[in-house]
Amino acid sequence: MSPHPSPSTPRPPLRVALAGIGVVGGGVVRLLEANRDLIARRAGRAIEIVAVSARDRHKDRGVDLGAYRWEDDMGALVAADDIDVVVEMVGGADGPALTLARQALSAGKALVTANKAMIAHHGLDLARIAEEKDTPLKYEAAVAGGIPVIKAIREGASANEIARVYGILNGTCNYILTLMEREGASFAAALASAQAEGYAEADPSFDVDGVDAAHKLAILAALCFGTRLDIGAVTASGIRDLIAADIREAEALGHRVRLIGMAERSGEALYQHVQPCLVPADHPLAYVPGALNAVVAEGNFVGRLFFEGAGAGAGPTASAIVADIIDIARDEYGPAFAMPVDSLDAAPAADAGARIGKYYVRLVVEDRVGVLAEIATAMRDASVSIESFIQRGNDEGDDVVIALVTHECPARAIGAALDALSASDHLVGKPMLMPILAL
Amino acid sequence: MSPHPSPSTPRPPLRVALAGIGVVGGGVVRLLEANRDLIARRAGRAIEIVAVSARDRHKDRGVDLGAYRWEDDMGALVAADDIDVVVEMVGGADGPALTLARQALSAGKALVTANKAMIAHHGLDLARIAEEKDTPLKYEAAVAGGIPVIKAIREGASANEIARVYGILNGTCNYILTLMEREGASFAAALASAQAEGYAEADPSFDVDGVDAAHKLAILAALCFGTRLDIGAVTASGIRDLIAADIREAEALGHRVRLIGMAERSGEALYQHVQPCLVPADHPLAYVPGALNAVVAEGNFVGRLFFEGAGAGAGPTASAIVADIIDIARDEYGPAFAMPVDSLDAAPAADAGARIGKYYVRLVVEDRVGVLAEIATAMRDASVSIESFIQRGNDEGDDVVIALVTHECPARAIGAALDALSASDHLVGKPMLMPILAL
Repeated sequence: MSPHPSPSTPRPPLRVALAGIGVVGGGVVRLLEANRDLIARRAGRAIEIVAVSARDRHKDRGVDLGAYRWEDDMGALVAADDIDVVVEMVGGADGPALTLARQALSAGKALVTANKAMIAHHGLDLARIAEEKDTPLKYEAAVAGGIPVIKAIREGASANEIARVYGILNGTCNYILTLMEREGASFAAALASAQAEGYAEADPSFDVDGVDAAHKLAILAALCFGTRLDIGAVTASGIRDLIAADIREAEALGHRVRLIGMAERSGEALYQHVQPCLVPADHPLAYVPGALNAVVAEGNFVGRLFFEGAGAGAGPTASAIVADIIDIARDEYGPAFAMPVDSLDAAPAADAGARIGKYYVRLVVEDRVGVLAEIATAMRDASVSIESFIQRGNDEGDDVVIALVTHECPARAIGAALDALSASDHLVGKPMLMPILAL
Repeated sequence: MSPHPSPSTPRPPLRVALAGIGVVGGGVVRLLEANRDLIARRAGRAIEIVAVSARDRHKDRGVDLGAYRWEDDMGALVAADDIDVVVEMVGGADGPALTLARQALSAGKALVTANKAMIAHHGLDLARIAEEKDTPLKYEAAVAGGIPVIKAIREGASANEIARVYGILNGTCNYILTLMEREGASFAAALASAQAEGYAEADPSFDVDGVDAAHKLAILAALCFGTRLDIGAVTASGIRDLIAADIREAEALGHRVRLIGMAERSGEALYQHVQPCLVPADHPLAYVPGALNAVVAEGNFVGRLFFEGAGAGAGPTASAIVADIIDIARDEYGPAFAMPVDSLDAAPAADAGARIGKYYVRLVVEDRVGVLAEIATAMRDASVSIESFIQRGNDEGDDVVIALVTHECPARAIGAALDALSASDHLVGKPMLMPILAL
């Protein structure tokens, strides 16, 4: 019943080309060299790099590429008939990466990519070409780095209807939040430390505004729910507006602040949002430190699955890329999104305002008579009931930080209360609103 | 390059027979019925139960089996030519389960099993038959219940040389330890609660003596290290000898007590041991509560991967079994132990006495002059250096609990110190020795 060749038949090596040799590409070369024999045993055949291509041949990458054929033009990798798999590590949602990916698949070559932006924006188109050509498209490294979460959901949890998938999908943000937590630092100070230590880019917006996490979330959602990948439906707010007091008050309320990407079914519709949340201390996401990533999937039979590991870096990313290559070498692969593209459902975006939950609200207000009444009135008028309320003592005349947690209510109600308050002369800056993660 | 049929070709249903319909079998029936359409979309074909077999046809199982052909004799499942996959849920390392498994594979049928004892004792023999017949043998449910850890290691971490694999492999023990932690309960009281709540069997020895965890560990080790599965090489000590003070003092020392199965490379040799350990509070295993399972694998490129979920129960076990069936339906499978049986290495058992680490030692002694000196002398004579030492005040005349943590030393040295102390008249009962999990 199996299409697999007998294990006694020796199989020819799988011939791989690497496009884009930066930090990750260097990691893939090192991994394939260091674990060469072990990988051949596990894959049932040798995996050989036959060609590499990158912009600058003479750049020092810390790995010796002398043994491999060099191509200045990536297109040559597609044209070569001694290449089975193209590994795309060029980056960018469009441009040369996308051209290469399309051409490689169209030529019937297998494509392995770590490019979350490209998969989030063009994953369905690429999957369609892969299906037409009956060739693999694999992207384990695009979500949560070294954690094999694409495989765990696509295959490990495949028997389940999944209700929610969520997690810490950006290591830079988690590193910054952990620093704020440990050192009581401001966002700006923690970001500067993260930049100094190489955990954040000079322009950090892709990470701290939630864009990167949104790409990963859109991919996870399509896989979990069998829906058409729709990056346009993901809304994202990042961690820039957090202040040290948010971390401190969350802790006082028995929670930790994490940037959570969450996709959830709501009837036929889908809620997909990236935002800072309060995570209860008895949830494993509260214990994910530093630059790690973690993903939770909730299935109707398996219950809650939790996966944690390194979300970025040369070694972990290379681990995921080479796992994909080994799957291809073993002929253990199937449709990129677990089912043919045409059978994915189009899910409308859920009404985020209708989403019921508890919320954390933090306001900075002038220390004046009547401010408290103003807040309480706005909440009451919007039918928002308050579960806990913290106002710390401060030196007279200083601004006051007020943190409160609501009872369950629709997001829309809180929005109305904050809109009403925004008219107040006593409010200093924008209020901070975070959902509390429901267990 | 792919042997896969084109996605546009409709494929016939995959025909499944279930052998042994207890709690887990009932879960599989319910799952395949409840998620039928979703599974067909993901598997690319329908998955149909065509026959069931169990000892007693008339037992109430809470599921309606009327739609399926009933076979009193399991052998009929093997003989039938309308069955592609046999799911073995009979249980027991030998006997009818093993006979069925051998016959099914020999007949060229796919075998899916949740039977950890059978795989631990006969996995290699079964894998060899599966190879000869080029048919799948899958056992995701045999280790850590619903967590797809076999897949995560076999495929997700396949690019890595793995240095250690370890985890909480028995939910009953973890449930008992969590109760002892929360309530300060004795082992006996916690076991009684676990039995009353259905988390422990009337005869709990299989769980609390570490036998069940040893089975799972042996399977993980073979997969991680590419070594011949060798249940005889796994040593196990359980949690019966723990007292409430152990949990309390571990906490005072910044640790939690967990029953840990660990397999570790030591040159060519392999260390495989199940025993209670002190887990540092900054390790994710310290936060695994109740009956959950968790597995850690450390790879040379990916770093530390951590997986947590339900380790038992009808739903999670069924989830793992059906995931295996879906892999078979998709033709996404390969050698049971990731490589052909003949290419697995025979690894000698590592010298456990030579294992370097920090250790926790707890002694109960009579409250007499000179006892402390006796302990200190025994440790000194064995060249064991002490890092921390706790002796709690007590009412005069009562026995005294002493808990200490050593600096790094070989296990053999601690053994020598405890041997010397065993001659003492002042020692009450057996000392408790637990390694401290190294990060």
